[in-house]
Amino acid sequence: MPKKKIKINVEPIGKRIYLDMPTNGLDALIDAGIGIKSVCAGEGTCGKCRILVLDKSGDPPNSQEEKILSPDEIGRGIRLACQQTFDRDVNIYIPASSLSEKQKLQVGGKEKIVDIDPVCRKYFLQLKKATMDDLGSDLTRIKRALKKEYGIKVDTIDLRAMAQMPQAIRSNSWEVTATIRGKEIILIEGGDRTKNSYGLAIDLGTTKIAVLLVDLLTGRTIDSTGVMNPQISFGEDVMSRLNYAAASDENSARASKVVTDKINDAVIELCAGNNLEKEEILEMTVVGNTAMHHLFLGLPVKQLGLSPFIALTDEALNIKAREAGIRIAPGAYIYLLPPIAGFVGSDHLAVVIASDIHNKKGNHLAIDIGTNTEIALKSGNKITSVSTASGPAFEGAHIKHGMRAAPGAIERVIIDPGTCVSSIQTINDKEAVGICGSGILDAVAELLKAGIIDKRGRFKQGSGSLCKDDKGQLQYVLASRAGGGTNSGTSEAASGKEGEENIGPACDDRDISISQKDIVEIQLAKGAMRTGIEVLLEDAGIGFKDIDRVVIAGAFGSYIDPKNVINIGMFPNISLKKISQVGNAAGVGAKMVLISKKQRAEAEKTARMIDYLELTVFPSFNDHFINSMQFPESGNII
Amino acid sequence: MPKKKIKINVEPIGKRIYLDMPTNGLDALIDAGIGIKSVCAGEGTCGKCRILVLDKSGDPPNSQEEKILSPDEIGRGIRLACQQTFDRDVNIYIPASSLSEKQKLQVGGKEKIVDIDPVCRKYFLQLKKATMDDLGSDLTRIKRALKKEYGIKVDTIDLRAMAQMPQAIRSNSWEVTATIRGKEIILIEGGDRTKNSYGLAIDLGTTKIAVLLVDLLTGRTIDSTGVMNPQISFGEDVMSRLNYAAASDENSARASKVVTDKINDAVIELCAGNNLEKEEILEMTVVGNTAMHHLFLGLPVKQLGLSPFIALTDEALNIKAREAGIRIAPGAYIYLLPPIAGFVGSDHLAVVIASDIHNKKGNHLAIDIGTNTEIALKSGNKITSVSTASGPAFEGAHIKHGMRAAPGAIERVIIDPGTCVSSIQTINDKEAVGICGSGILDAVAELLKAGIIDKRGRFKQGSGSLCKDDKGQLQYVLASRAGGGTNSGTSEAASGKEGEENIGPACDDRDISISQKDIVEIQLAKGAMRTGIEVLLEDAGIGFKDIDRVVIAGAFGSYIDPKNVINIGMFPNISLKKISQVGNAAGVGAKMVLISKKQRAEAEKTARMIDYLELTVFPSFNDHFINSMQFPESGNII
Repeated sequence: MPKKKIKINVEPIGKRIYLDMPTNGLDALIDAGIGIKSVCAGEGTCGKCRILVLDKSGDPPNSQEEKILSPDEIGRGIRLACQQTFDRDVNIYIPASSLSEKQKLQVGGKEKIVDIDPVCRKYFLQLKKATMDDLGSDLTRIKRALKKEYGIKVDTIDLRAMAQMPQAIRSNSWEVTATIRGKEIILIEGGDRTKNSYGLAIDLGTTKIAVLLVDLLTGRTIDSTGVMNPQISFGEDVMSRLNYAAASDENSARASKVVTDKINDAVIELCAGNNLEKEEILEMTVVGNTAMHHLFLGLPVKQLGLSPFIALTDEALNIKAREAGIRIAPGAYIYLLPPIAGFVGSDHLAVVIASDIHNKKGNHLAIDIGTNTEIALKSGNKITSVSTASGPAFEGAHIKHGMRAAPGAIERVIIDPGTCVSSIQTINDKEAVGICGSGILDAVAELLKAGIIDKRGRFKQGSGSLCKDDKGQLQYVLASRAGGGTNSGTSEAASGKEGEENIGPACDDRDISISQKDIVEIQLAKGAMRTGIEVLLEDAGIGFKDIDRVVIAGAFGSYIDPKNVINIGMFPNISLKKISQVGNAAGVGAKMVLISKKQRAEAEKTARMIDYLELTVFPSFNDHFINSMQFPESGNII
Repeated sequence: MPKKKIKINVEPIGKRIYLDMPTNGLDALIDAGIGIKSVCAGEGTCGKCRILVLDKSGDPPNSQEEKILSPDEIGRGIRLACQQTFDRDVNIYIPASSLSEKQKLQVGGKEKIVDIDPVCRKYFLQLKKATMDDLGSDLTRIKRALKKEYGIKVDTIDLRAMAQMPQAIRSNSWEVTATIRGKEIILIEGGDRTKNSYGLAIDLGTTKIAVLLVDLLTGRTIDSTGVMNPQISFGEDVMSRLNYAAASDENSARASKVVTDKINDAVIELCAGNNLEKEEILEMTVVGNTAMHHLFLGLPVKQLGLSPFIALTDEALNIKAREAGIRIAPGAYIYLLPPIAGFVGSDHLAVVIASDIHNKKGNHLAIDIGTNTEIALKSGNKITSVSTASGPAFEGAHIKHGMRAAPGAIERVIIDPGTCVSSIQTINDKEAVGICGSGILDAVAELLKAGIIDKRGRFKQGSGSLCKDDKGQLQYVLASRAGGGTNSGTSEAASGKEGEENIGPACDDRDISISQKDIVEIQLAKGAMRTGIEVLLEDAGIGFKDIDRVVIAGAFGSYIDPKNVINIGMFPNISLKKISQVGNAAGVGAKMVLISKKQRAEAEKTARMIDYLELTVFPSFNDHFINSMQFPESGNII
């Protein structure tokens, strides 16, 4: 039996490091190719290599850490990587400030052009000065001016906006700008502020949060940022987060707070970078899966994690931002698109409206690939949606050398069918650290194409390109790190270790390789997606040939090579022209309902059109799943 | 020159104590007749005589205080009276827990019968259980049942009510009770809770807060309590509180918090006494003067304290209770009746609707006597209201021996016109400690009647009943405490000190007496009110003889002898039958709009009917004021 290795799980990169012996934390991270900052070369004086030790079993700080870190940081589990020894399994989180390079987090997507008609509008008002002969209240003056100048009648005013009135009025010669949302005044500013109308569209993902800063007058995205969802420290997948939050009210509150804090930080950063105040943000829209939706609002989730997985609501919500702990204009609202069901969230609705399938004739599929993959089929006047537990394999989890799309991740793989040697491309051309989703997809497709694996996913014993790991399991090496040398991102790994025997030389532990287990994970993932498609088609009584267009949404979906999606059988064979990769369509949908009242109404109407179909109770589900696990015959690979 | 005395201002009783020399705090309070608790006789061990030293100049705690008091209490200025030495001017506040007897705080009033039709209603619902074949959200189920069982369509649900759904539903066999307010679900409870519907009506006064606990199904007041407004520690009168709150955001927040805390405490106490949970309170209504309204909500008040004294709003407000820091049902609202103007608050509107003058034909006056006295004249189809700065004299302030209606306060005075000797009645028949409003009114009327003061308010030098204070000023002694003896509440003070000279023997410092300055304060107060009445009559073009009814509201108004109101010329001579004393009409109005939607609509309509008339800009204001200062000719006294 080989000695059990020490496993370090590194978030937010999603990389696992295996150590043979206790190792200095900074050394281990650098050895694994993770871009962590360090200036003092491990002396413990620069404080750049802060990490968050997620497990409570973290050692007490040493004297150097006590000198550099604040008591609050220490209390939260922050330590210096260089002062830590990784001597047992541990989960760590590297804050963005300690990472030398940002992760690749796609926030944009292909936008549909919509009319600019936001729910909030600003009106400049010249008020009559109060005198002993004209004693009307501040609000009366504002209402009178709105009526007289613009013919607008409002019903109510936000309490905080009311509190802004006296100062705004009296410090600005009785000139103010009122922001109206529906029949409510939500903001009062001094002077003419009609040119400054901003909003935020947020795609609240399980892994990442995309934040778009939008000018509500032009509809233009001024700036955007992508940040990791910090709930990752409570569990990587949705179900473990639901379990965490359901365990206690404190957990639920914490799960909500880490996200709202993160969004608040992102808002501050975006505002600072664009020279505006967060109080100028008039509206925020949020889309996300139903779990993220509930956790964000601090709503109870116990029932969402238990069969039959019931959501609290399937309606759109208008919540005061301050009630949700979001610090923008004090009277501003957050608009949350309606969830569809327990496992089909408002992000799916956003994908549907962004891809515009609800307005199209014919048969259309929209697929948002993630840990759960939601698939909508528009056919006739109906939209039917399913959610498949495709798992996180395409996000790099459950894959031995898997990682997220961070610098050093292998994102493209080509295998020469003759030599069985691979060429790889890594993100930012860094030395290979692991494999991200698109790289895994490529690798499997190329292994199939080169005949190294068969249609059941098994390594062919005769294939001249495999080595054995320390448990005797076959592996295909994509990148050899054994020599510890190549800095070029595009390298050729002699996957067969030329000159040695064809089967079974021992792999070097440091090599980036694909294992048999990894292939099975990919089969499960692609099988789940294919099953969802097949069930939808059967339910609608059509075949794949009847499909006019397939829209692939999501960050992963925009990096992949669509032909390999077909090659591994995630989709049936289809003309590549029918496939559109639209990027972060959920974010685009969130933006559409931010800048257009009409789109908001249309989205809510579309939500009521969508029928959720529960896959597991569909009669032929099991048959489809078993068939979908297989890879296509090698002759069908394009 | 006599030595300057040490002045101790004792709140919430409104009593001032003058000391010749440094004195132990507990002794000084007991000597002054104030009912402060003490068990250990000043040893500093029982901790009963806790007082709040309002000035920051309070001494640091001694070792005994450090033993008995918590660091938090010490930080807030709490000390033990028995361990303090009063050696300089200081303001102290005696918490209710340290007072041996409660103050007299009227909370009730004469009620008008209204239909019971509260804004909140409960509905019992039997929901369909969720299954894999019926995956509708919790909210969808509740809405479906509301529609099917009761034909009710709601638009929205409170976020907190939404959070209550899953537990309420699943712990109670899918039976819940939904509370609807307008088109919103504000509360979800498990099981059938339709019999439990409660509300609170609050009259938020400058001095006291009256809280009525009301059964919304029957309209019955189940219980009530009156508590002091703790803002008194920031200033006794409205203007000093406005100045305090306007000084900083922290002050403003504190002024709001002390009131909401006090109300929360009162709610807990009322609920505990009636075996119900505060979360069962579905709605709260609040009336108060415009300053109390703004301060309660933490709204800015700087502009309210500066000419032209502009209110932020003159509309009714519906605020989530939790937004105002009030802990009742989490989704509950507070409804605040509209203020009329900067110095005519929603309490005045409440008095108008409770006294029903808005529905009466003829000419009606409604007068709510306080530090500011608001007067409404209903004449024809119009209601005109004024506010007069009558000052706090009738609440015992600015009167040498004045105090509020606490035990030991002289509340009734009769002076024998022959002997000029007074008979007094004190509250709870305790030894006389000071004079409260009704006692002052009686005393002045009786002094006039006995010819001891003339119509200009001056003591008649020849009157055989006066003594001189240490500054040589004339005084009339109501109760002699010199002997330190009589425990009987009804005592006869030999006010002339029989056997001595008629004019000018020296008064004993401890006597409870009326000074020339006190008389002037009463003249100013009653003059202000009379001026208000005269201006309203002139404005309406009618005379006092045309008045069909005068409604006197307010706690003070219900304790006074109405004939003495006429005798001092606060009102012109009028048949006593036309005068109604209705008690806390503001509280009654708050209750009316709590239990009836129709009354709420009627009140808002009435608010728009009321014209505010600014007295100080009325042309003949000064003439009226000068005339109103005088007392009636002695022949006109009844």
